[in-house]
Amino acid sequence: MTTNRQIHLVSRPQGEASADNFKLVESPVPTLADGQVLVRNHYLSLDPYMRGRMNDAKSYAQPQPLNQVMIGGTVGEVVESRHAGYKAGDKVVGMGGWQEYAVADANQPGMLRKVDTTHIPLSAYLGSVGMPGVTAWYGLVKLCEPKAGETVVVSAASGAVGSVVGQLAKARGCRAVGIAGGADKCRYVTEELGFDACVDYKLHGDLKSLKTALKDACPQGIDGYFENVGGTILDAVLLNMNAFGRIALCGMISGYNGQPIPIQYPQVLLQSRLRLEGFIVSEHMEVWPEALKELGGMVAMGKLKFRESVAQGIASAPEAFLGLLKGKNFGKQLVKLV
Amino acid sequence: MTTNRQIHLVSRPQGEASADNFKLVESPVPTLADGQVLVRNHYLSLDPYMRGRMNDAKSYAQPQPLNQVMIGGTVGEVVESRHAGYKAGDKVVGMGGWQEYAVADANQPGMLRKVDTTHIPLSAYLGSVGMPGVTAWYGLVKLCEPKAGETVVVSAASGAVGSVVGQLAKARGCRAVGIAGGADKCRYVTEELGFDACVDYKLHGDLKSLKTALKDACPQGIDGYFENVGGTILDAVLLNMNAFGRIALCGMISGYNGQPIPIQYPQVLLQSRLRLEGFIVSEHMEVWPEALKELGGMVAMGKLKFRESVAQGIASAPEAFLGLLKGKNFGKQLVKLV
Repeated sequence: MTTNRQIHLVSRPQGEASADNFKLVESPVPTLADGQVLVRNHYLSLDPYMRGRMNDAKSYAQPQPLNQVMIGGTVGEVVESRHAGYKAGDKVVGMGGWQEYAVADANQPGMLRKVDTTHIPLSAYLGSVGMPGVTAWYGLVKLCEPKAGETVVVSAASGAVGSVVGQLAKARGCRAVGIAGGADKCRYVTEELGFDACVDYKLHGDLKSLKTALKDACPQGIDGYFENVGGTILDAVLLNMNAFGRIALCGMISGYNGQPIPIQYPQVLLQSRLRLEGFIVSEHMEVWPEALKELGGMVAMGKLKFRESVAQGIASAPEAFLGLLKGKNFGKQLVKLV
Repeated sequence: MTTNRQIHLVSRPQGEASADNFKLVESPVPTLADGQVLVRNHYLSLDPYMRGRMNDAKSYAQPQPLNQVMIGGTVGEVVESRHAGYKAGDKVVGMGGWQEYAVADANQPGMLRKVDTTHIPLSAYLGSVGMPGVTAWYGLVKLCEPKAGETVVVSAASGAVGSVVGQLAKARGCRAVGIAGGADKCRYVTEELGFDACVDYKLHGDLKSLKTALKDACPQGIDGYFENVGGTILDAVLLNMNAFGRIALCGMISGYNGQPIPIQYPQVLLQSRLRLEGFIVSEHMEVWPEALKELGGMVAMGKLKFRESVAQGIASAPEAFLGLLKGKNFGKQLVKLV
């Protein structure tokens, strides 16, 4: 009998999340029922939203239940199938969770999707051609509504979502400016991803300094902002927004550890007649086909660049996840499971 | 020669505005040039936006210049005309400023508009059938997008804008809930204006208490919020918003005296996927005809109720304005000039 190694959530964080909140559990791979498919997970995706699920608080999603496998997106290969639509060897993307093997009920819509790895690497379906990519696409295209010649700013610019936002903005004729932590990330954002500029927030510890740095990077002001971070960065951007600017609120990772981080200058929202909208991409499934078509095409053509931080083995997932929350990853954070 | 009494802004407030910032000035009524119209102002409108103009700060509008007549909307009667479109006796609405007589260049579009006082009182063109009414209409209809059965909340509910917001929401089949200061205003909001409930913020000095009071008044949560006030009230509303709620940001009067008032819980904007948009109605002239048609019709039919606080004489304008900023008015604040 094959053993399946899993990571369970065993306690909820008080403040910062820690390795103690997780536990490695071994269990046998179950026998399949009719309609089920057994997937060997090749990659697990680690994403900031998971931190929110660890809390037992009102949010857009149910909390992650204790003593169960942590949820998470995965790509992998079908090893056994009792569903006519799948056969061993098929490459699939799904929500397999933090574990080596996942049993999926293939009759449930949206549980499993076959993917083509001829021109697109399997792991990209967890990044630029997956949930992070569509997140970038939706927030930028539908909420920031960039027009050629405008300036678009994105925080966490070297990350899985931010890197796509800037490259899509460039493709639309915008000036793309990133915000990232550290010289390496900023260099990557401008030199490899092709952003016009990148502000290193670690060089600007206070609002005034960050505001000035953004002003220098955005001489025409900011028309669209894709927010992944919150806190001081959001205030510094607000103070540089042009009239009728649009803000897509995708994440506020800086507040995920529980302490709310205020917006210090909300009156700017009125003075500059800004529109700000929070969203989660799984509620906008209608855009996925259009978004994946553009993203997949760009990746296949080598026009959408990305970087991955890959941890090895399921046991490394908790530490890799805690590092992600602190910005230690560089590019899309994955755990390789094979 | 007729004397024109005016109020000038002579200094900018440091913190709270005060009577010292204003000065009563007498000057002769000028002789008309071709195309000009002389209007005897009957009513001056006092509005919160004027406080913003007193500051020399980046905002959506130019600051009010020092040592000139304070800007302001007026209604009055033409007493002399050198423009073919106007004759003595015509009732007009315009931006006549804080003064008894105004000279308008009638060739400039939007400077002057003739109004019909057969079924609508002249002063209403400064309130429910004027800028405050259209402000309410735009923010509610275009930004809050209320649907029958939803709950709409408005702050400063007994004021010129808020009172219209709630009545328009009721006309669209919504539950309308006001926030106002004091038992008299709350009684007026529910008993005379027909709102379903009104929360007296003066009874709830802290966020927790106000949040609970709003929850009681809005058992189904809040779908649309029309914001005139900001500060703690905005946070209390945010914590009661339903998923996909819409917020029209019209005013943040609580922060007009200079000190920024943070939003304490911005992460709710993301968690509840809210849309928030700041606006000023003068940038949306395209909606005025449609809005004025509905508002004028409702006033003429007695279906849109309003109340006015009327100060007498131009010299009383500064004190009446300072009272408005502190919520001392009850209904639309006017100054009667005849």
